[in-house]
Amino acid sequence: MSTITRHHSDARLSRAVVHNGVVYLAGTTADNRAASSKGQTEEILGKIDALLKLSGSSKSRLLSAVVYVADMRVKPGMDEAWMAWVDAKNPPARATVETRLGTPDTLVEIMVTAAQ
Amino acid sequence: MSTITRHHSDARLSRAVVHNGVVYLAGTTADNRAASSKGQTEEILGKIDALLKLSGSSKSRLLSAVVYVADMRVKPGMDEAWMAWVDAKNPPARATVETRLGTPDTLVEIMVTAAQ
Amino acid sequence: MSTITRHHSDARLSRAVVHNGVVYLAGTTADNRAASSKGQTEEILGKIDALLKLSGSSKSRLLSAVVYVADMRVKPGMDEAWMAWVDAKNPPARATVETRLGTPDTLVEIMVTAAQ
Repeated sequence: MSTITRHHSDARLSRAVVHNGVVYLAGTTADNRAASSKGQTEEILGKIDALLKLSGSSKSRLLSAVVYVADMRVKPGMDEAWMAWVDAKNPPARATVETRLGTPDTLVEIMVTAAQ
Repeated sequence: MSTITRHHSDARLSRAVVHNGVVYLAGTTADNRAASSKGQTEEILGKIDALLKLSGSSKSRLLSAVVYVADMRVKPGMDEAWMAWVDAKNPPARATVETRLGTPDTLVEIMVTAAQ
Repeated sequence: MSTITRHHSDARLSRAVVHNGVVYLAGTTADNRAASSKGQTEEILGKIDALLKLSGSSKSRLLSAVVYVADMRVKPGMDEAWMAWVDAKNPPARATVETRLGTPDTLVEIMVTAAQ
């Protein structure tokens, strides 16, 4: 049976799961929800960097991303942080959609997959 | 060409698709939509168990999950059923977001991937 | 390190990413947003055909799809175009949820994965 490695698990979810060379991250949000959408995205992307490193991957190996924004009006702020961060030669397939998130002040949540 | 196996297909979608050791399930909802979010989630998770078994996998092999809830206020009920069900040593990467679903009384829809 | 191939990339995202025999497409929307949901879906599916071909895949090799509709009332129009297009013997695992999309007149967005 193929190996599955899980990181930062609690009784509900794992922050990162690795299987067959592919890394699946949980939906990631910011702790500082007083921040702007740009600030929240910067915090999220920092967390994603750390989880990808822990999983033997990096932002240059992203495969896909779904970005959930609480309001399409915060998309420009999210995108500003995203474009400053993403490896411009190796961006993932991405979709951005508007949904309500875990708390009213959660403006952005990002879920990615990456190759090891 | 690599093999793809599909289960419970109709002209629109397959309930489960298996490729290269990974199982992709369709978004799963409850038939008894008079049930609470906890009850709907219990029914959904039973369906997921059956589809994973049919696909040569199990809940202990989950990789990722996206949980769509019709209202964040039903998330606690969903989570109660989820935590009673999930293998606490092997939980998937998960995101939960609020979206409208197929009918007004559909409170929860869950889409997962798993390893065989 | 395993190879990742990216197609139609800009500084933000790639329209298609291929890794280990799996193709990940970005969320795809229609350019003609004056069209009905059926018309927008037809345009989207044409774009998906082209991206899958470029990636060494086809609609008969779809693994999973998430369909975002701006309003559940446009789902029948989307489904009409979908069912005329999908390989009825080889449909993917699919979920359809209602979210706001990039612009108010964007009625449908579809994100798929496929096997090469």
